[in-house]
Amino acid sequence: MSKKAIILLSGGLDSVTVLAMAKQQGYTLYALSFDYGQKHNSELESAKRISQLYQVEEHKIINLGLGDIGGSALTDDALSVPTTEQEGIPITYVPARNTVFLSFALGWAEVLEAHDIFIGVNAVDYSGYPDCRPQFIEAFQALANVATKAGVEGQKITIHAPLIDLSKGDIIQQGINLGIDYAGTISCYSANSAGEACGECDSCRLRREGFKQAKVADPTRYIKNSTF
Amino acid sequence: MSKKAIILLSGGLDSVTVLAMAKQQGYTLYALSFDYGQKHNSELESAKRISQLYQVEEHKIINLGLGDIGGSALTDDALSVPTTEQEGIPITYVPARNTVFLSFALGWAEVLEAHDIFIGVNAVDYSGYPDCRPQFIEAFQALANVATKAGVEGQKITIHAPLIDLSKGDIIQQGINLGIDYAGTISCYSANSAGEACGECDSCRLRREGFKQAKVADPTRYIKNSTF
Repeated sequence: MSKKAIILLSGGLDSVTVLAMAKQQGYTLYALSFDYGQKHNSELESAKRISQLYQVEEHKIINLGLGDIGGSALTDDALSVPTTEQEGIPITYVPARNTVFLSFALGWAEVLEAHDIFIGVNAVDYSGYPDCRPQFIEAFQALANVATKAGVEGQKITIHAPLIDLSKGDIIQQGINLGIDYAGTISCYSANSAGEACGECDSCRLRREGFKQAKVADPTRYIKNSTF
Repeated sequence: MSKKAIILLSGGLDSVTVLAMAKQQGYTLYALSFDYGQKHNSELESAKRISQLYQVEEHKIINLGLGDIGGSALTDDALSVPTTEQEGIPITYVPARNTVFLSFALGWAEVLEAHDIFIGVNAVDYSGYPDCRPQFIEAFQALANVATKAGVEGQKITIHAPLIDLSKGDIIQQGINLGIDYAGTISCYSANSAGEACGECDSCRLRREGFKQAKVADPTRYIKNSTF
């Protein structure tokens, strides 16, 4: 039997690429998504489609009261998603999101007796979130080693972040080489219910530039009359 | 204005003691509890009562799909809570529970701009869970320093675990000195809806021994006809 891997799958461009990478490496795939009150809920539909397409062993969608904490334009109706580039850590940052997501992945890994977790964080063409940086992944790895039954018993649960040093263009190029059709992926923070992207938010901007860098036609379906 | 602290409040003996300690240190209290499908749901009622009694600024109860992951006798109906002492890490261990709880506390701390998180883990009279040990708290502290906006901006979020080196008897003694009435706290893994304890599970056993160590009458309400 092949090794099990848990893939944090948002349904966006990065996480799909990571899933395809893990599949190519021969892992049996367990996809983990979260319904945390994000406004861009259509990404979960994308995660479901992708999980079917890649025949994952199991796709778990966890309901999380992360929006209850507030503080982010991605979950709080009182805050708008900006359409221009921001200084510093932007308002779309969801406090401790990747820490929470990886914690759940860690718990599921223990139950499945999986020793590999994949996450599509990227520290090059990214929004400046603290929990997308290499030092965050390293610190979580150190935590995983002591937080778990596996760790206590001398088995390691490895956090893989294969995109962390890649440009968005490189990620797309690698994904295309793996046969990914990015048309079905949703990265937009303000996607409508039809899964169309705004073209204007930080995530759309990084994605559009990535397709340019990769010299690949952008297959994203944008909302009609977008002005970008 | 006094400093804000987030207290992870299960409603059990340890977390109440920690809450009283933080109050004595002059913090403004924010209590955080989780509804994660635990069978011993009456502990949440205890957490609510305690939050009122101690006049916390806010008590947040987060709904968590932690039970969806399975693997623990505390959340999985297919697994029974043992009534005898177990070898190794017991089946009542909820995979990555404290990692998930602290992650949420970290997110809330960012939103509140709080710099202190209190957790009632204890590594002396405890059930042998990996995420109750000093090395776990140290690793989470290191993670908190890099995972957050506060960390990036040079401010620290400190994880306080004031019970970590205390015996259960010492915890109870300190709590009594702080005026805690432990009658209202629930530690039992199998408490009934009236909040009565089984007296037989690991958590009951540690608690009973703690009252003996502290030479304090055990105020716990036990289920009638318990045979321990």
